[in-house]
Amino acid sequence: MQSTVESAQRFLENYQPGKWNIQYRLLTPVTPVPSDMEVSRSCTPKPIGELAREIGLISDEVELYGQCKAKISLSTLKRLKEQPDGKYIVVTGITPTPLGEGKSTTAIGLVQALGAHLGQNAFACVRQPSQGPTFGIKGGAAGGGYSQVVPMEEFNLHLTGDIHAITAANNLVAAAIDARIFHEATQSDQALYSRLVPLVDGVRNFSDVQIRRLQRLHIMKMDPATLTNDEISKFVRLDIDPDSITWQRVLDTNDRFLRTITIGQSPSEKGYTRTAQFDITVASEIMAVLALTNSLEDMRERLGKMVVASSKKGVPITTEDLGVSGALAVLMKDAIKPNLMQTLEGNPVFVHAGPFANIAHGNSSVLADKIALKVVGKDGFVVTEAGFGADIGMEKFFDIKCRYSGLQPHVVVLVATIRALKMHGGGPTVSCFMVLSKQFTESNIPLLEKGCSNLRKQIENARIFGVPVVVAVNAFKSDTEAELQLVVRLAKEAGALDAVKCTHWADGGKGAVALAEAVQRASQAPSHFQFLYDMELPVVEKIRIIAQKIYGANDIELLPEAELKIIQYTKQGFGNLPICMAKTHLSLSHNPEQKGVPTGFILPIRDVRASVGAGFLYPLVGTMSTMPGLPTRPCFYDIDLDPVTGEVNGLF
Amino acid sequence: MQSTVESAQRFLENYQPGKWNIQYRLLTPVTPVPSDMEVSRSCTPKPIGELAREIGLISDEVELYGQCKAKISLSTLKRLKEQPDGKYIVVTGITPTPLGEGKSTTAIGLVQALGAHLGQNAFACVRQPSQGPTFGIKGGAAGGGYSQVVPMEEFNLHLTGDIHAITAANNLVAAAIDARIFHEATQSDQALYSRLVPLVDGVRNFSDVQIRRLQRLHIMKMDPATLTNDEISKFVRLDIDPDSITWQRVLDTNDRFLRTITIGQSPSEKGYTRTAQFDITVASEIMAVLALTNSLEDMRERLGKMVVASSKKGVPITTEDLGVSGALAVLMKDAIKPNLMQTLEGNPVFVHAGPFANIAHGNSSVLADKIALKVVGKDGFVVTEAGFGADIGMEKFFDIKCRYSGLQPHVVVLVATIRALKMHGGGPTVSCFMVLSKQFTESNIPLLEKGCSNLRKQIENARIFGVPVVVAVNAFKSDTEAELQLVVRLAKEAGALDAVKCTHWADGGKGAVALAEAVQRASQAPSHFQFLYDMELPVVEKIRIIAQKIYGANDIELLPEAELKIIQYTKQGFGNLPICMAKTHLSLSHNPEQKGVPTGFILPIRDVRASVGAGFLYPLVGTMSTMPGLPTRPCFYDIDLDPVTGEVNGLF
Repeated sequence: MQSTVESAQRFLENYQPGKWNIQYRLLTPVTPVPSDMEVSRSCTPKPIGELAREIGLISDEVELYGQCKAKISLSTLKRLKEQPDGKYIVVTGITPTPLGEGKSTTAIGLVQALGAHLGQNAFACVRQPSQGPTFGIKGGAAGGGYSQVVPMEEFNLHLTGDIHAITAANNLVAAAIDARIFHEATQSDQALYSRLVPLVDGVRNFSDVQIRRLQRLHIMKMDPATLTNDEISKFVRLDIDPDSITWQRVLDTNDRFLRTITIGQSPSEKGYTRTAQFDITVASEIMAVLALTNSLEDMRERLGKMVVASSKKGVPITTEDLGVSGALAVLMKDAIKPNLMQTLEGNPVFVHAGPFANIAHGNSSVLADKIALKVVGKDGFVVTEAGFGADIGMEKFFDIKCRYSGLQPHVVVLVATIRALKMHGGGPTVSCFMVLSKQFTESNIPLLEKGCSNLRKQIENARIFGVPVVVAVNAFKSDTEAELQLVVRLAKEAGALDAVKCTHWADGGKGAVALAEAVQRASQAPSHFQFLYDMELPVVEKIRIIAQKIYGANDIELLPEAELKIIQYTKQGFGNLPICMAKTHLSLSHNPEQKGVPTGFILPIRDVRASVGAGFLYPLVGTMSTMPGLPTRPCFYDIDLDPVTGEVNGLF
Repeated sequence: MQSTVESAQRFLENYQPGKWNIQYRLLTPVTPVPSDMEVSRSCTPKPIGELAREIGLISDEVELYGQCKAKISLSTLKRLKEQPDGKYIVVTGITPTPLGEGKSTTAIGLVQALGAHLGQNAFACVRQPSQGPTFGIKGGAAGGGYSQVVPMEEFNLHLTGDIHAITAANNLVAAAIDARIFHEATQSDQALYSRLVPLVDGVRNFSDVQIRRLQRLHIMKMDPATLTNDEISKFVRLDIDPDSITWQRVLDTNDRFLRTITIGQSPSEKGYTRTAQFDITVASEIMAVLALTNSLEDMRERLGKMVVASSKKGVPITTEDLGVSGALAVLMKDAIKPNLMQTLEGNPVFVHAGPFANIAHGNSSVLADKIALKVVGKDGFVVTEAGFGADIGMEKFFDIKCRYSGLQPHVVVLVATIRALKMHGGGPTVSCFMVLSKQFTESNIPLLEKGCSNLRKQIENARIFGVPVVVAVNAFKSDTEAELQLVVRLAKEAGALDAVKCTHWADGGKGAVALAEAVQRASQAPSHFQFLYDMELPVVEKIRIIAQKIYGANDIELLPEAELKIIQYTKQGFGNLPICMAKTHLSLSHNPEQKGVPTGFILPIRDVRASVGAGFLYPLVGTMSTMPGLPTRPCFYDIDLDPVTGEVNGLF
């Protein structure tokens, strides 16, 4: 009570909407740029509570998690509800190489420039990376070089446990599905009923979640004694068709041996075995729910609407039917609060949610963006990142994330690299296992010019949504000035409002000042944001519009399984959900080998699945791996803890 | 830097070794006692940072995790190393009913009495409960009634993520085992070598963990180019025998369908399937390591010594051989710090580690106890709890935990209930699904007197270790004064230094003041602590001593698998580890139906397993379930989140 009063007083005394009174860190970049770990460790972050105060958060809104992470309460939104939103900037990219083209790094560098160098209120919102690949083959996701979220080991490891909470919630649902099938298979209606509605102190009562199930069954009774045998049977039997289960178990570990498994082989399960699988946790629908939710209430509702299977009669079975939806909300009650960290230069960063970018929408959370937009205020900037290339992450950012959040984007920053553009021009395949060929490390104007076709198409894709585009050319040491100028010129010709070279990886925010200025100008330009499709269109139409307008396909082809599912989901009432394409990010088409701007192709739709709680249908274009594996020599060979200092060594 | 200086100043100004300047909360207990959740919610806990200051911790030692939890840095031990330890009290119990006899509640009530009512520095150290059973069938583990750790929902849910960290670390090992078997099976020696020791910028180098493996193989070379083909083969092939794998995957979820599974059935694993299982996370050896470790350095070492399988030639394969041990330490770097919470009356509580009490030793962490003993100071009290009855949890507390910690226990508090004693006297079976029979709810002196045999034997068990015993009779409303007095008298006759009735469940610390005074007196009595057996004795001898002296068995019987394993482990050099019996807690014998003091039995040893990193062998007496299941109506039916207040409803 006392601390509430104190913090309210402090707030009234110190809070001034407007420019933050914030201390930035002066960077002194070293050449050559050391490892990400060394750069991260060379800086002492501010105590995170101090940063929270600098940006006007009051103490009741800040839950510290150690010295460098904090969870920010959703009550912030309520306090600042009259405050107008800042400018909303989304960072996306051209079709990338498997190495990535630096979207996270650019998002962080841009915020460092806007804040520490141009004196604007600027907030970065990025995804939390899966911990699995940290020990497998992928690099970190905290940005890189002198544009990083720090401390990077905290960012890349447990953070504040949000992904662990998702693992727990997801697997509680999975355990509940199989246990329920087992108990229904081994008990009579009466036995099930007397256990589901037990005598407590001589009385039977329905729990709230059971009353809601009765209502969905149109059984409008509150007294357990009054149900007919037929009603009891309907109530106690979910009658799940095991072949219809779409809910998988998850782990935040790269464990390839769990891709296909048989479960239930202990004698205690009496022969009720079935084939199942584990996905990596970030592929869980609960992650997509976390990323798309607008409030605690909305999350509770979405968690209850998740469809896990169908009954043998084709009725969708939800987590609410399983009685587990309330427990899921309880498990996720802290995960819903965005995590505050900081950049190397001391700017605020929200790290929150990290859904898959193919079977889900690949964007950080709506709530982080919403809070950040209020905290920066009318003249401030929120820079958020959309996964994969503009054809995927940005399209989903607009058509799914902005549709559910109601937020209006102001500028698209499209990141391009000379390396990726040369690949699109016909250069050899790029992978993390190969030494880059000379075509990439030496000037090659014709290859580059040809490859700019991909940049042109992705600029066009952004412009379809009516939002101004700024191209950020993320410069590498080997790029020549002529190459960089060519890309800038071609980008402008293709309709980008501006295009600038950036060197934030090597120079920190200073290297992104030109980009930041371009973004400031673009944010003043008129934006006529519109969705790509109307949600009420038939499912097939929505898929076709994305395929033709964004990917450049001639048409789509529905394979039989997809056709069946579209009929089923439409019948079940899920036909009006937005579409989340599960397509490779390595090509505008479905074939990762086709670089540049593929034309004349028919996009095959193999299957369609539903994330009803998150709120989208996801057509599968090809096979998506949802469980990575460990290579012969995983990253963990280099990782260790210094037992004296407690420092982490060898992480990237 | 500045905050370091400030906190050092504050420390020097305010820190006085000796009595804490601590504000306790005044309880006003209500009759009948409301649900645990309601009692917990009726109290507003102190901000945890305030409690930390009150007990003399300095700000650099305290990492807040929200308002009511904090992690305490191991540097506290270094700062206070000259400070003498307080009195070390272990709470154990008679052989329990499946409902439990209130050990946690007694530990909390005793600390509330010692601190808030007798003005002593007193610290409780308890185990973190598994989250799985929270949603299954078990009640909470935060104590109960007016003797609780608060907020109880934080205690029973994620806490600060320690168990999640164990899940992640454990499963990284499991993924590494199967991935390694797969890569060895599908690649030549040369291919494996060139991947394990890759060319980086034209040079091949061994990582540190690889150099240590070479040394264990007696290959004293540092230059990868100089290994012979034979040495390369030895180095790259762990040659794991899949049938020898003892390392299981874990989840903190009650998922019975994962008890026996077949993994590796995806085509990408090319037919390398095998039978495997998931255990609940608290059964992981990493949990036992966390509970038994003395420092970061010691933990790093133990995590590397864990044996996961044998090679086809019978050589033990460790996590260090897999190259994953450093990553495990990194994943566990925060989990090693004890979690500070508080009782309803505002006393400090450490919640840290919660290993299984059958296949592991069932005690909270050594580090929490060690820090607490320094923080309470010479005249203070640390009350720690040992799982199950005295024959299991207490025996392991002395012979395993105290052996590794080097700490000297001062008093054993042995908890008994009239209910359990009547069961031992021949009363009917007690279970959570049944209404208690009249024999329990009405006075029955003969049944009770007969059942006190079990109390007598457990007192004797404590006295074997040379430590004074105080019996705490945890009173229920239905117990008569005559019954309570009988137990008190018989306990004293059996050699307890004292025996007192307690009502802390209904009354809070006030109800345990008599117990606290008895404990104070007992802590002044001479203690002649000794271990039960010498570690250097042969494995069979150590098992026999425990079985005969503690359980009252005539002898032990080794089944063939156990005999083989004892030979194997002795040969591998693990014969001198202490013994951790995996026996039912529901009887002094191996048969849970045998109540009271069974005699004339031969204890069968079915198998023996090793937790080499944690540091014990565990003989299996019967089959231990390491993965609970969900009943027809799991607890989650009642659990929900209030989306407006954010409060958790229906949790116990």
